[in-house]
Amino acid sequence: MAEEAAVRAQAETVRKLKQDKADPDEIAKEVTKLLELKAQLGGDEGKQKFVLKTPKGTRDFGPKEMAIRERAFKAIISCFKRHGAEVIDTPVFELKETLTGKYGEDSKLIYDLKDQGGELLSLRYDLTVPFARYLAMNKITNIKRYHIAKVYRRDNPAMTRGRYREFYQCDFDIAGQFDPMIPDAECLKIVHEILSDLQLGDFVIKVNDRRILDGMFAVCGVPDSKFRTICSSVDKLDKMPWEEVRSEMVGEKGLSPEAADRIGEYVQLHGGLDLIERLLQDPKLSQNKLAKEGLGDMKLLFEYLTLFGITEKISFDLSLARGLDYYTGVIFEAVLLQQDNEHVEESVSVGSVAGGGRYDGLVGMFDPKGRKVPCVGVSIGIERIFSILEQRLEASEEKVRTTETQVLVASAQKKLLEERLKLISELWDAGIKAEMLYKKNPKLLNQLQYCEDTGIPLVAIVGEQELKDGVVKLRIVATREEVNVRRESLVEEIRIRTSQC
Amino acid sequence: MAEEAAVRAQAETVRKLKQDKADPDEIAKEVTKLLELKAQLGGDEGKQKFVLKTPKGTRDFGPKEMAIRERAFKAIISCFKRHGAEVIDTPVFELKETLTGKYGEDSKLIYDLKDQGGELLSLRYDLTVPFARYLAMNKITNIKRYHIAKVYRRDNPAMTRGRYREFYQCDFDIAGQFDPMIPDAECLKIVHEILSDLQLGDFVIKVNDRRILDGMFAVCGVPDSKFRTICSSVDKLDKMPWEEVRSEMVGEKGLSPEAADRIGEYVQLHGGLDLIERLLQDPKLSQNKLAKEGLGDMKLLFEYLTLFGITEKISFDLSLARGLDYYTGVIFEAVLLQQDNEHVEESVSVGSVAGGGRYDGLVGMFDPKGRKVPCVGVSIGIERIFSILEQRLEASEEKVRTTETQVLVASAQKKLLEERLKLISELWDAGIKAEMLYKKNPKLLNQLQYCEDTGIPLVAIVGEQELKDGVVKLRIVATREEVNVRRESLVEEIRIRTSQC
Repeated sequence: MAEEAAVRAQAETVRKLKQDKADPDEIAKEVTKLLELKAQLGGDEGKQKFVLKTPKGTRDFGPKEMAIRERAFKAIISCFKRHGAEVIDTPVFELKETLTGKYGEDSKLIYDLKDQGGELLSLRYDLTVPFARYLAMNKITNIKRYHIAKVYRRDNPAMTRGRYREFYQCDFDIAGQFDPMIPDAECLKIVHEILSDLQLGDFVIKVNDRRILDGMFAVCGVPDSKFRTICSSVDKLDKMPWEEVRSEMVGEKGLSPEAADRIGEYVQLHGGLDLIERLLQDPKLSQNKLAKEGLGDMKLLFEYLTLFGITEKISFDLSLARGLDYYTGVIFEAVLLQQDNEHVEESVSVGSVAGGGRYDGLVGMFDPKGRKVPCVGVSIGIERIFSILEQRLEASEEKVRTTETQVLVASAQKKLLEERLKLISELWDAGIKAEMLYKKNPKLLNQLQYCEDTGIPLVAIVGEQELKDGVVKLRIVATREEVNVRRESLVEEIRIRTSQC
Repeated sequence: MAEEAAVRAQAETVRKLKQDKADPDEIAKEVTKLLELKAQLGGDEGKQKFVLKTPKGTRDFGPKEMAIRERAFKAIISCFKRHGAEVIDTPVFELKETLTGKYGEDSKLIYDLKDQGGELLSLRYDLTVPFARYLAMNKITNIKRYHIAKVYRRDNPAMTRGRYREFYQCDFDIAGQFDPMIPDAECLKIVHEILSDLQLGDFVIKVNDRRILDGMFAVCGVPDSKFRTICSSVDKLDKMPWEEVRSEMVGEKGLSPEAADRIGEYVQLHGGLDLIERLLQDPKLSQNKLAKEGLGDMKLLFEYLTLFGITEKISFDLSLARGLDYYTGVIFEAVLLQQDNEHVEESVSVGSVAGGGRYDGLVGMFDPKGRKVPCVGVSIGIERIFSILEQRLEASEEKVRTTETQVLVASAQKKLLEERLKLISELWDAGIKAEMLYKKNPKLLNQLQYCEDTGIPLVAIVGEQELKDGVVKLRIVATREEVNVRRESLVEEIRIRTSQC
């Protein structure tokens, strides 16, 4: 690759020399060099094909995408701050052993780094395990923090639906020993606030509890050793019909058909407080200690959510399982609902945009003495949200500004580069966002066109007459109005005129 | 690790059951389970030592460090935006071949990912090569953008001096075919603005040009093939005395002692316009085409920097080489100067905090037809800057707030959890940053103490009497003043009282 590029660079040198009609001796010398370089390539120069792409499952964000991304981040961060969260950051990779045994069946999706001598490292798979490692390492037993960063999964990407191998997670977690369900309810409130604020359309937040699931598995006759793997199967119910999930349970995972059918009855249930009350009376479930605990807390959660006024978007759903191993209590997942068309009454789920739950054991897995720190948290699936915002923006044909420039420093005549440099320097030093074209003698029309293209609202035009008069001509791009402003008032005038921008 | 954690979790279950004086049968069952799990561990449970740390050369940023980091980012981003830059982002890893052959001797420091099937990947080493790849891939010939992201180098970390294996770079680059030295001068202006704004103390920006270096090597009798490697040696002059660099050139790199001595004379020179003029008259250098071009442009650069009023911080320095292969024109590096103590007149360099230069060939290395896009850019070495800001903050004992919470929702009596939840929900929905303690019946003193600890300026206290009267008691933490505010005016009152915060 380096050699190939050297050949290309040298070929370009030769081309230029020929074009410039340079000294024939010099050209000959450079041609010789070019031939030598080509020879080094070993003759296969033409065959080597260089692939110009980003790695599979990743993408660049150009200025327009970044403008959209920053809008979404702003809404999310301001919500996290509104709830009093601090912010932390951790390295993009962890010791491999830090991640081992935390993700169940998904562990195969972890990216490892090559062993180049030294520690064995892996890219983080989520922000939750690094958070737990951070708490244990620093002996922190009490924190409310958010963390926005990229995570990595060697999954099969479905990029049009916002599924990537490198993607952002926006996590908010509350760690500490508190009275039951108060932090859990706040996490759901946060999801509700963010999805409402981003105006993504109608949504529902499904809620369940690992203890209810485990109790349900127990009363359905699932052996203890199969709890986690059957839980993984249930987790697929949002993508597969029950019949397929059932056959996975029975066929691949060796569950008895009777147990599977009993599970099948429960996982069809969803509702609100009424369903919780009913299950608290369920002759089998109510006898199971775990399930009873989970249902009791679920009832408390719904009471708090009623005080927050958000129960209409919450659905207690026994089919919600969530794949990750580390959850121990409440789990939840927000999905967007989409009207296929206006005549269809049933709304269709278009995928998860947020999820989370309680994981009271994870920090203890890192603590040398196994000391636990109860945690509950939520992760916003920002990539899906980007996809939706991007599609919407494309449909709307709204013009997105990608810079915040307030004024272009322009000139109407030639030989005014020095004056433009002096003026723009004054503006920068006064905190004004200013640009100029990087040309000695740009045409006024090109300068005005640049403003039109990029949405710059003002042009500060220096000309010989204006210099003599000690003024600058300020042009308002939208109205084409032009006013002479005294040089010493220019900064103030620009500030006033762009204060609404 | 997973097994070990399971043992710990199970041991905890047993401990709890015993503590709760649970059913002896149940305890016995759980103890059996614990023994089984221990057996699975194969007896070496006690010996397995889990290392609780971040990977070598990396660190976590806690809330306090993040507050400092965000302050520095804010200054840098607002400068980049002031100069009209757009923002982009690229993946943290690239195809391995994208990075190959771009970094010269430093390529050995690149982190590779493990081959897990599929593409061969490496972590980015800087933001410049991904930027060039992005331009070529998207056929962009004209852009001014910034990019703030982490990069990775398997270097020997010196963490106390802000040298890490994972670190942020803050890059600003201008790509496009423009009139000479106008974008180059803007890059230097940006460095000057940022370092002044961050008040890091006195600094100097060293400037040189690769063409001047190459011309100098030519007239000193360095063979063409040794230009890059001798350039790497010169680059070490900021860390090593000339004698050591000379012996590397002669001993390791096979340069003739005469050539080395000639180089030694040039690389001691530094100054301003006067030095440029002198070298333009230098009988040897002035005969070299490259050197003459470089010196001509350097003169132009100094003219523009004079218009920007920043030449007093700029030093044309022939010893500046910069390690990376891809530079083709102007190069520069900003170093902080530190007075060792007040009686010592000579100031000592404490290391580079920004650097950059022109790289006109890099994009062409990615373009299938070798089409060039001239570029110039600057990278702010934010980690060193963090180190300095952190040390300074520690010395000053200034208290840094790590949240923006405006008000704590508190209660004076018991059984008011529901009222607190209702009130805080109203405040959140109105955009007020509010917290409450996650306890059913917290003591007022603890609630007030929390505000003292975290810097929350206001407390909204609900009590039975206040509820009857339709008011909330608002306490100003700093003055201990308390006022009753009608519930419907509370949001407005909080906004007014925290508008200066």
